[in-house]
Amino acid sequence: MIIQFKKPLNQEILKDILNTMKQEHHHGILVDNHLVVFDIDSFDFNERQKSVIDRIEQHQPRYVLSSRAFKSDDTIIKTAHNEIGGNNFTVMAGPCSVENEEMIHRLAAEVKAAGATVLRGGAFKPRTSPYDFQGLGVNGLKYLREAADENGLDVITEVMSVAEIESVGQYTDIFQIGARNMQNYELLKAVGRTHKPVALKRGLSATIDELLNAAEYIASEGNFNIMLVERGIRSFDGTYTRNVLDVGAVPVLHKLTHFPVIIDPSHAAGHADLVAPLAYAGVAAGAQGLLIEVHQDPARALSDAAQQLTPAQFTKLVDHVNKIRAIDHEDEL
Amino acid sequence: MIIQFKKPLNQEILKDILNTMKQEHHHGILVDNHLVVFDIDSFDFNERQKSVIDRIEQHQPRYVLSSRAFKSDDTIIKTAHNEIGGNNFTVMAGPCSVENEEMIHRLAAEVKAAGATVLRGGAFKPRTSPYDFQGLGVNGLKYLREAADENGLDVITEVMSVAEIESVGQYTDIFQIGARNMQNYELLKAVGRTHKPVALKRGLSATIDELLNAAEYIASEGNFNIMLVERGIRSFDGTYTRNVLDVGAVPVLHKLTHFPVIIDPSHAAGHADLVAPLAYAGVAAGAQGLLIEVHQDPARALSDAAQQLTPAQFTKLVDHVNKIRAIDHEDEL
Amino acid sequence: MIIQFKKPLNQEILKDILNTMKQEHHHGILVDNHLVVFDIDSFDFNERQKSVIDRIEQHQPRYVLSSRAFKSDDTIIKTAHNEIGGNNFTVMAGPCSVENEEMIHRLAAEVKAAGATVLRGGAFKPRTSPYDFQGLGVNGLKYLREAADENGLDVITEVMSVAEIESVGQYTDIFQIGARNMQNYELLKAVGRTHKPVALKRGLSATIDELLNAAEYIASEGNFNIMLVERGIRSFDGTYTRNVLDVGAVPVLHKLTHFPVIIDPSHAAGHADLVAPLAYAGVAAGAQGLLIEVHQDPARALSDAAQQLTPAQFTKLVDHVNKIRAIDHEDEL
Amino acid sequence: MIIQFKKPLNQEILKDILNTMKQEHHHGILVDNHLVVFDIDSFDFNERQKSVIDRIEQHQPRYVLSSRAFKSDDTIIKTAHNEIGGNNFTVMAGPCSVENEEMIHRLAAEVKAAGATVLRGGAFKPRTSPYDFQGLGVNGLKYLREAADENGLDVITEVMSVAEIESVGQYTDIFQIGARNMQNYELLKAVGRTHKPVALKRGLSATIDELLNAAEYIASEGNFNIMLVERGIRSFDGTYTRNVLDVGAVPVLHKLTHFPVIIDPSHAAGHADLVAPLAYAGVAAGAQGLLIEVHQDPARALSDAAQQLTPAQFTKLVDHVNKIRAIDHEDEL
Repeated sequence: MIIQFKKPLNQEILKDILNTMKQEHHHGILVDNHLVVFDIDSFDFNERQKSVIDRIEQHQPRYVLSSRAFKSDDTIIKTAHNEIGGNNFTVMAGPCSVENEEMIHRLAAEVKAAGATVLRGGAFKPRTSPYDFQGLGVNGLKYLREAADENGLDVITEVMSVAEIESVGQYTDIFQIGARNMQNYELLKAVGRTHKPVALKRGLSATIDELLNAAEYIASEGNFNIMLVERGIRSFDGTYTRNVLDVGAVPVLHKLTHFPVIIDPSHAAGHADLVAPLAYAGVAAGAQGLLIEVHQDPARALSDAAQQLTPAQFTKLVDHVNKIRAIDHEDEL
Repeated sequence: MIIQFKKPLNQEILKDILNTMKQEHHHGILVDNHLVVFDIDSFDFNERQKSVIDRIEQHQPRYVLSSRAFKSDDTIIKTAHNEIGGNNFTVMAGPCSVENEEMIHRLAAEVKAAGATVLRGGAFKPRTSPYDFQGLGVNGLKYLREAADENGLDVITEVMSVAEIESVGQYTDIFQIGARNMQNYELLKAVGRTHKPVALKRGLSATIDELLNAAEYIASEGNFNIMLVERGIRSFDGTYTRNVLDVGAVPVLHKLTHFPVIIDPSHAAGHADLVAPLAYAGVAAGAQGLLIEVHQDPARALSDAAQQLTPAQFTKLVDHVNKIRAIDHEDEL
Repeated sequence: MIIQFKKPLNQEILKDILNTMKQEHHHGILVDNHLVVFDIDSFDFNERQKSVIDRIEQHQPRYVLSSRAFKSDDTIIKTAHNEIGGNNFTVMAGPCSVENEEMIHRLAAEVKAAGATVLRGGAFKPRTSPYDFQGLGVNGLKYLREAADENGLDVITEVMSVAEIESVGQYTDIFQIGARNMQNYELLKAVGRTHKPVALKRGLSATIDELLNAAEYIASEGNFNIMLVERGIRSFDGTYTRNVLDVGAVPVLHKLTHFPVIIDPSHAAGHADLVAPLAYAGVAAGAQGLLIEVHQDPARALSDAAQQLTPAQFTKLVDHVNKIRAIDHEDEL
Repeated sequence: MIIQFKKPLNQEILKDILNTMKQEHHHGILVDNHLVVFDIDSFDFNERQKSVIDRIEQHQPRYVLSSRAFKSDDTIIKTAHNEIGGNNFTVMAGPCSVENEEMIHRLAAEVKAAGATVLRGGAFKPRTSPYDFQGLGVNGLKYLREAADENGLDVITEVMSVAEIESVGQYTDIFQIGARNMQNYELLKAVGRTHKPVALKRGLSATIDELLNAAEYIASEGNFNIMLVERGIRSFDGTYTRNVLDVGAVPVLHKLTHFPVIIDPSHAAGHADLVAPLAYAGVAAGAQGLLIEVHQDPARALSDAAQQLTPAQFTKLVDHVNKIRAIDHEDEL
């Protein structure tokens, strides 16, 4: 059960309630003015206790802090240059990997011009084979940060291990947790402790419930700055698309959770000419942002060569997306 | 290889070419001004033969008649009330099952008013269990036909067996082949022989290539009036959606085939509140039509109760879809 | 609920019970000494009625006739040369396609010598593309029948459409329903009406419940001579095996249904060198039979070239299988 | 290409070859008497260089060190009490979680008596929800170690993060990497640096190639003591089994890699009554070991209650497995 207290909190009665719960060996957590008690659905409060309670939600999913039952209004994540979630729409773009200093500076200017407000770029790359290009590491992060700052953009980049959190955290505004690490619980808890925004990518075969429970690992450490990224799921047919964009996950997640939902059409598509239609689909279904791979010369990219857009293609995509967004506003979707 | 001859056909030289092929034991089919030869990629034609040849396509997929290599421009299917495919957009709507005469007449008027031009409704229903409601049969077909005629609509309804083709064909304008029958080859060939429009639904775990090869069974009998219906594929997670709408199949099919691509968001969603976002996604990705279940009182429907829209919900959906379509036109997607 | 009456049936009281049910508008079916009533879980019988009732099963799955709740002991299917199911073990083998008269005669003798008692062979072949070899048709059936008769073997061959049932039925002892037709309900009902043994293959992405409901379509027409064939399901990885043999389906089906469970390792494997380990796995898990593709010269086969065994490989396989079976007997698995 | 040198290594000529490669900017690694060069398939060696080369393998998969191309004979992993791989068969058993000191001591004795030689038990548990029981931590490890030592058993337990490697490594003989961490590359590299045996579990939707590339991350750090664990993959049907045991992965992996292949039927089954048939299937298909959950009182287990065997069930299972193994030996599978 979730007990929502009236504000301002009456500390005395609250303490009394917590004591009562403790005496009866109930297991719970207190977040702001919410007390979540995991093992019971109702409780016989006395009148004095009732007087400070605003609302009681009897049933809550296992991923309680991530649920609409816990927080019914949309979470808005504030960064230096963005408000992400709610009625906002955020375009994040950049290369799969930061390959050198010059390329990321040029790209940052180009994606900014097209409408992006967050610069993406990989410095530590998770690659299927240990012999593939693993990214520029800390140098890549520096270039990325400088390019973003020069253009008034936020930075999003992947963090792959607990040990890297501090150094990556110095350069990024948003930690990206990759699909392969969606259930790397130590990493989730560690980014949870930073309180910095986290973009959590759905695992290739993760259910919606597993995604939300993974988010819960971050939230349970006190970090509510979470956005969820649908990036395509694995199916039986990989002939023409790399993965299947589960566009239905967008409205499903909006029902279940208050966190923003972002679409990554690049990894779902796997082929540049499919990125735009998937992006339009995601936006039409209600996504609150896009994460897109852009490269000046995709054919020569050191990773994900097939699926990156040129700046010109990206500009056209953002323009079309804005028109779809305009309808939604009009119709108050 | 596909040999496209100049028009009008020079019958004499064509006969000469066919004879040459026959003598050398090549295996092929002639469709209009196209000769498809399956077992070779090139041929040493003499000058006279070359003079009647417009274009030679050396490589073609196995589903040759269905491919863009065979026919590069979009197929437009003409019915009494519709042109389906190309830049047209067709809304097909109606109940999962025709339950009685009165309901289908009322619904026909309502979906027409909302913008539908094809009336759907099941009379012979494929049901997982033999003990589930199997449809009204021929009476259902009669009601459906009358309701459509009264409102100037085409009819689409499922045909489940070769034996039913004649009787169902008397009442319908479009044969629907259900997902479970996508590889029922006898049925495909039989509807192929009718030359009546066919809406072929993708099987639950059919690859894109299997879908196109299934269409080829119809086309190889001389029937090119085929539309392909993406209706959701089976995945590992059926908790919140019945299936996963493979929205990427829309642009993929547009690249590979000239046949129209229709989206069925109702069966993909499985829940009424998800139908609209999936429909918007499909349209934004380039679908040329929608197939949607509508019912006056979904909660009391004899089948698919959870996923049918009310006429009011459907009206709102079509209105929003039209706005997305308007952008596409503007941007010449 | 399932009401099992004492034998011999007291027709008078039975009629009384049926009348009572009818008057109260309950929906049911009577099979032998079992009355299945679908819409209720209990009923207030009078003492006279109770006196003829042996047992009442309150809950039954939707696939009632196929369930252990309806029939707790294993179904044994009797053919001219076999008893299939229960503690019997049946090896069915032969080529993917009957390619000519001579080959099937030689193969029949060879698989018989190795221990097979049923001869398989395709005469009408379901092929993904309409341009692939479609089988020899009725001639193939004749060769198959003669080859089987010459060697004292039963015949199993696929029937693909209602129209072919009569002609195929003249030549075969067991109808095979292919994976693509598992939910071709008209075909299921039609083979149900023949009362001839049916081997129902699980569809590529059919759930266990869907398989059992498909069997129910056959059983509901009065044909209980059904064996279920696990032949591999479609997964995300087709690199090294064609499909994934769901070996767990064997014990699961044994719990849920009384019908025999057969393993087809050839289609699951897709590569000859994997057929034996998959067969051993299936047998070790409790399968009651095997369906295996054997060809004198697999490399030159007109279909499924990669996965057919030579007679020598097949002989070795059967020998090893018999040893695994011997342990099971000993341990009364 | 893989260049295998004659033994003993001629250091002088080897150095010469390495220098030549370096000068021509080829990228390679030297492991024992093997030099793997990634970017070329052949090289024009001089006669002196040729004289020290035993064999050249021109093509190798991306997971080169893990491949049969690199090492054709089976890897045997030696621990205090076991030789794992090759013709050996290793039974690892114990509870899902170490719940207290007494239980693990009793269980250790019981699984030893039944034939297990490795004791499994979770101390740090990866759980879908942060609110589920997370294991006893270091205390659990101590109990586990003592119980194993008392009974002459090796220990296998999961390590979930780089930070825990040192402490877990003090207590365990084999690091288990769980399915969720199969592509946690930092963790793979870190256990690779320890040179301690690693049991790498296949991810829920990991392809065979991804599994082998994950193993390659460990091997590329110099640790060849790797066993691969098939524990069931995620499919479309979770009604009766938790996952689908991909039994075909066993022979496939034997073809591709020299590492031992272990089956975990407990997690594939998800239900105790299915563990035995899946174990038998895995063994019949050629698995070199089993990893099985055993608990004195499964119904009261703090995790995985449904799928743990009682010691009596486990004893029966091992007895039957030994009989299947005996056939294999006899037939030199």
